[in-house]
Amino acid sequence: MLTGKLVTFEGPDGAGKTSALNAIVAQLQPQLGDRLVVTREPGGNQISEAIRNIILDRNNTAMDDRTEALLYAAARRQHIVQTIQPALDRGQLVLCDRYLDSSVAYQGAGREIGEQAVYDMNQFATKGLTADLTLYFDVDAAVGLNRIQQHRQNEINRLDVEALSFHHRVQAAYLQLLADHPERIKRIDASQPLEEVVTQAIQIMTTKLPTYMATEGGERE
Amino acid sequence: MLTGKLVTFEGPDGAGKTSALNAIVAQLQPQLGDRLVVTREPGGNQISEAIRNIILDRNNTAMDDRTEALLYAAARRQHIVQTIQPALDRGQLVLCDRYLDSSVAYQGAGREIGEQAVYDMNQFATKGLTADLTLYFDVDAAVGLNRIQQHRQNEINRLDVEALSFHHRVQAAYLQLLADHPERIKRIDASQPLEEVVTQAIQIMTTKLPTYMATEGGERE
Repeated sequence: MLTGKLVTFEGPDGAGKTSALNAIVAQLQPQLGDRLVVTREPGGNQISEAIRNIILDRNNTAMDDRTEALLYAAARRQHIVQTIQPALDRGQLVLCDRYLDSSVAYQGAGREIGEQAVYDMNQFATKGLTADLTLYFDVDAAVGLNRIQQHRQNEINRLDVEALSFHHRVQAAYLQLLADHPERIKRIDASQPLEEVVTQAIQIMTTKLPTYMATEGGERE
Repeated sequence: MLTGKLVTFEGPDGAGKTSALNAIVAQLQPQLGDRLVVTREPGGNQISEAIRNIILDRNNTAMDDRTEALLYAAARRQHIVQTIQPALDRGQLVLCDRYLDSSVAYQGAGREIGEQAVYDMNQFATKGLTADLTLYFDVDAAVGLNRIQQHRQNEINRLDVEALSFHHRVQAAYLQLLADHPERIKRIDASQPLEEVVTQAIQIMTTKLPTYMATEGGERE
């Protein structure tokens, strides 16, 4: 029985993980074909998108940090049910841009709710579904923030309007997660050129998930 | 230092608790004046109302039960932060139509997620804020369902379209909560005439919260 695998892409804003993900997919697609599923929260379903709209609405300035964390968890739950779990059940390789670690880093540490409290609450949403592999795209908080401000100055949303100290707390939480889960989470230096970042990411995936990264004719688990 | 008190109104659909609440408020208002705050989830704030709209949208048929429970918890959190906690901080007597027990009964038992799991997740939303007194308006599930269908046949929403077995599970969960928390939760037979239901409710409130139910000139905690 073939079991799908979940690979999550994590990192602070401006680490360039989405660009890396796109380049990785372009490189893997010819080889893996429809074995590959690429997604990201909120995942394109109607309910999660509606939830996301509430979170990002700049008029919702009164939003409490815990309300926000619960809304992210609700959108995550629906994304799992409608997209991730069905793909895993079909035996596919799922690449997901942000997952549970983002909530622990952003709401737990960034918003200072507490990493453990956010993790525990999210278990209600995930029912224990954990990534098989997490690629952590690491970049200095100041560099990352600078990249965002340069690239998106015309579409800054409520979440971007945060102090640098927030981004420092997020990065520190990611580094703690990396230290706590060395088998699951692998760090990639995102200050390198994109080509090098992509090469390293594919190397790590090939080492950790050999049967999934084999060519179509290759052996599968 | 005066501390506010939270009284929650609970019961299965069709128990008539909202009618009872309105009649209770009409009777207490002249006596308690602005000491009294009446509210109900989602509480009228912009964020909770937007969340509620997602929950009740009949087009959202794909909504997972845990997504729904997380959305209720998010709306509850915002209602606490914007309405309930500020009123308690001012020393007011807060009467709230539905609170945490509703989630335990409806999502935990009705939807069969599990009462403990829903209770635990909601602790993230409430940060432990528990009702000082809960009035449980008890009515047979079949009677309650029948009342709903008679009174609201032109505005049935997604949540009303449920089997009778669902309502039986909800009622059983409420009775279990009553057995587990005999000091906090007091049962009122809601099949009695409204006048009798109101009289009993006010008697219970007067016994449990004497200083809050005293006339304006009376002593307060």
